[in-house]
Amino acid sequence: MATSPWKRKTTVPRRLTEPAFHLDRDSPRPLTVQLSDALRRAMSEGTLAPGERLPSSRAFATQLGVSRTVVTEAYQQLYAEGWLEGRHGSGTFVAEREAPPATGHTAPPPTRPPEARTSTPRPSRRRVRDQGMVDLRPGAPWVRDHDRAAWRRAWRHAAEHPPDDDPDPFGLPRLRELLAGHLRRTRGARIGPDNVMVTRGTGNGLDLVGAALLGAGTRAGVEEPGYQKARSILAARGARVVSCPVDQDGVLTERLPRGLSLVHTTPAHQYPLGGRLPIPRRERLLAWARENAAMVVEDDYDAEFRYDVSPLPALYGLDPERVILLGTLSKTLSPDVGIGWIVAEPALLERLADVRVDLSDRTSVPVQAATALLLERGDLDRHLRRMRLEYARRRRLLIELLHTRPTGDTAGLHVMLPLPEHAVAPVVAEASERGVLVDDTTRASHGAPSVHGLILGYGSAHPTDLRRACAVLNEAIARHA
Amino acid sequence: MATSPWKRKTTVPRRLTEPAFHLDRDSPRPLTVQLSDALRRAMSEGTLAPGERLPSSRAFATQLGVSRTVVTEAYQQLYAEGWLEGRHGSGTFVAEREAPPATGHTAPPPTRPPEARTSTPRPSRRRVRDQGMVDLRPGAPWVRDHDRAAWRRAWRHAAEHPPDDDPDPFGLPRLRELLAGHLRRTRGARIGPDNVMVTRGTGNGLDLVGAALLGAGTRAGVEEPGYQKARSILAARGARVVSCPVDQDGVLTERLPRGLSLVHTTPAHQYPLGGRLPIPRRERLLAWARENAAMVVEDDYDAEFRYDVSPLPALYGLDPERVILLGTLSKTLSPDVGIGWIVAEPALLERLADVRVDLSDRTSVPVQAATALLLERGDLDRHLRRMRLEYARRRRLLIELLHTRPTGDTAGLHVMLPLPEHAVAPVVAEASERGVLVDDTTRASHGAPSVHGLILGYGSAHPTDLRRACAVLNEAIARHA
Repeated sequence: MATSPWKRKTTVPRRLTEPAFHLDRDSPRPLTVQLSDALRRAMSEGTLAPGERLPSSRAFATQLGVSRTVVTEAYQQLYAEGWLEGRHGSGTFVAEREAPPATGHTAPPPTRPPEARTSTPRPSRRRVRDQGMVDLRPGAPWVRDHDRAAWRRAWRHAAEHPPDDDPDPFGLPRLRELLAGHLRRTRGARIGPDNVMVTRGTGNGLDLVGAALLGAGTRAGVEEPGYQKARSILAARGARVVSCPVDQDGVLTERLPRGLSLVHTTPAHQYPLGGRLPIPRRERLLAWARENAAMVVEDDYDAEFRYDVSPLPALYGLDPERVILLGTLSKTLSPDVGIGWIVAEPALLERLADVRVDLSDRTSVPVQAATALLLERGDLDRHLRRMRLEYARRRRLLIELLHTRPTGDTAGLHVMLPLPEHAVAPVVAEASERGVLVDDTTRASHGAPSVHGLILGYGSAHPTDLRRACAVLNEAIARHA
Repeated sequence: MATSPWKRKTTVPRRLTEPAFHLDRDSPRPLTVQLSDALRRAMSEGTLAPGERLPSSRAFATQLGVSRTVVTEAYQQLYAEGWLEGRHGSGTFVAEREAPPATGHTAPPPTRPPEARTSTPRPSRRRVRDQGMVDLRPGAPWVRDHDRAAWRRAWRHAAEHPPDDDPDPFGLPRLRELLAGHLRRTRGARIGPDNVMVTRGTGNGLDLVGAALLGAGTRAGVEEPGYQKARSILAARGARVVSCPVDQDGVLTERLPRGLSLVHTTPAHQYPLGGRLPIPRRERLLAWARENAAMVVEDDYDAEFRYDVSPLPALYGLDPERVILLGTLSKTLSPDVGIGWIVAEPALLERLADVRVDLSDRTSVPVQAATALLLERGDLDRHLRRMRLEYARRRRLLIELLHTRPTGDTAGLHVMLPLPEHAVAPVVAEASERGVLVDDTTRASHGAPSVHGLILGYGSAHPTDLRRACAVLNEAIARHA
């Protein structure tokens, strides 16, 4: 290829210059919104057919007489919604659809509160990979280096577990014991089997806590910027969700509002900024909880991955009566296994168990049996040690290659790369046109982001792909920042 | 044993004759409530110690100067709450507790709407079995006759499935295809893989539907009497739950209220009365849904078990745009596996998939892989055929031995045994004292039951146990009815 694809001039097809695409500068609706609406309409009506290539953002912008940002932002939005797809090195295309998008004529009008829907659907990781793109969206671990013999052994062990007619809502006793031991060693808190309930992951744990403690008329706090699924999960249990601002060290404890039933926090490694909540703030957080009769939900989503110093002991250890600790193996093993835990006082776990039975919520028993064997034989610890080295290496590589300095601690599976506000959307769009998919802080914010930049997950990207991605990102940032 | 235990006179210990146990006939609080409160207090303060035997209901009633029903009802309530346990042939005991019951001092006051909590916790099936009791509470299948070779093969197959970083919210494509085929054959509806989402069971399916379609200010209908967990699940998604009366044929379609977003129904085999919704009512139900822009949730919890005629085709087939079909393998295979399905139009499934991603809700992938093999190799069909014969045999035995005629169709894993209202509580209490645990229609009702009787599940009971249970029940019914 002689010319880089993002510089290639494509002509703008006639049907994209028609009245529907005459943008109105005097309208209160932003130009980007007008354009994405017009494109969405053209795609749903079939004027733009699946598989068709869209004009380059440059050519289209010239044709429309608007700045290129208007076009890249509209593309980015439609990309995020799944209407468009990028193919590495060849531009932006109308996505193939198996089924027409929901028209609403078969179902009652959507009634979920708007804050219960925070994220727009995105292309699946598999699809992105199949298109040869590098996927740096955060949240996925590396799953290709498992000890396959250990994995097989675990499932063969599960096969020996005869089916049962009455799964225990707390989980298999043996697994509770093993998880308690694992957590005592890694999270520095006095945790016994009676403090552990086996869940399917942190999302399942938060949902159960929400179902037990929230409801109409209650308020729950989440970090802002923060993990938006926590917001969805709590809102879907009827709570009004309140944003709690954070800085580079974590949640601002002096700005926590009154009247919350609980606050969801990531003290080990704030998502997405990457700070570790310092001891004085931890103490203020717990004092706030006691004064407000509130619970602190400590989301320990990636606490096992620190590469410099040992992790701080879990907040839970400081006040087991005020803290509910949530953990998961989805970052350690794989998200498709579905094992996590809630650590709390036995009295609260009893309440959560009642809720579980009431809601028919369960953790698959064979999966618990397989996980127990992985823990028992030390396979999980070995895997953790190996992956800790590998992730540290990827993190170092990323930081070394990027010309922009990320924020946050030396931990976890992602970094936040601060950028000027105006540069974020064009960088994301250009990277996607060039086959590199990244998130930005709008995905970790409710409404307009207060912090601007990219969120890069390096967990699931091979070093070769990281190199390619860094080159693309450096160029895009140089151009737009 | 010379004397039957339920006739044995035990003396009433001194501490149960103290002022706390002087019941007040002039109080508006029913005597049963006064007594269960006094007992609860004595147990939580330690006046009554774990393991201690309670006086027989007869002796205690004489001592207190109240009717025996007051005592048996108080015992029954505390039994249901897990405070008491029965040991076969030796009376009623204060239950052993591993942890003190929740006192609430560590957590904010409960805020779930009262209708979100419908059932009191009960002793686990394992515990009941360990005590040598016969457990006829409905909801459990027989899990001891699996083809162990097939079961092992399935999990070994799952072991070959490498871990993945991006589970598909719709489920494994191969499993969707196999389930579609299975449902086409067994449920007589045009169902393709695009109509199937793999869930963890009917509870998970209903919860997702609730999260997608309900919220504060919405109303959802459930059958009354009916499956109370459906009520809990929908209420926990913020809807106001409205009771829809049923008769022996199923839900009374002419009495369905307006303004519901959805109604949860069991048309194949109404729970608990056992009727099959006749065709004219099916048509009226769908007409109601169209007029009200509501969805019908068809809960097919045990549709594979009919012993006389073929099941009616699924309601879904009559109007795929208005019906969401929920199914599960928990009755066919075992509840600890956790595989079920939602069948709906692709556009609605897309919405449910978005909700799943938003809420981090997943079905374990290895479990899906194992289930796919069981379907693919015909193991599930063979198991179904075998169990259908076995359950039909148990049902015939139960009906032959009982002196009371149950209601409902020749289907499923339970029967409803109508009794006069005054007889229900004493029969349940006496059966439990004699080692036979049964449910009654209060457990399938919201508030005061409109239909009175026992609900007997024969799925998980061996024929020997069924014989023993029928003898006990016949005697108890003869005494109290």
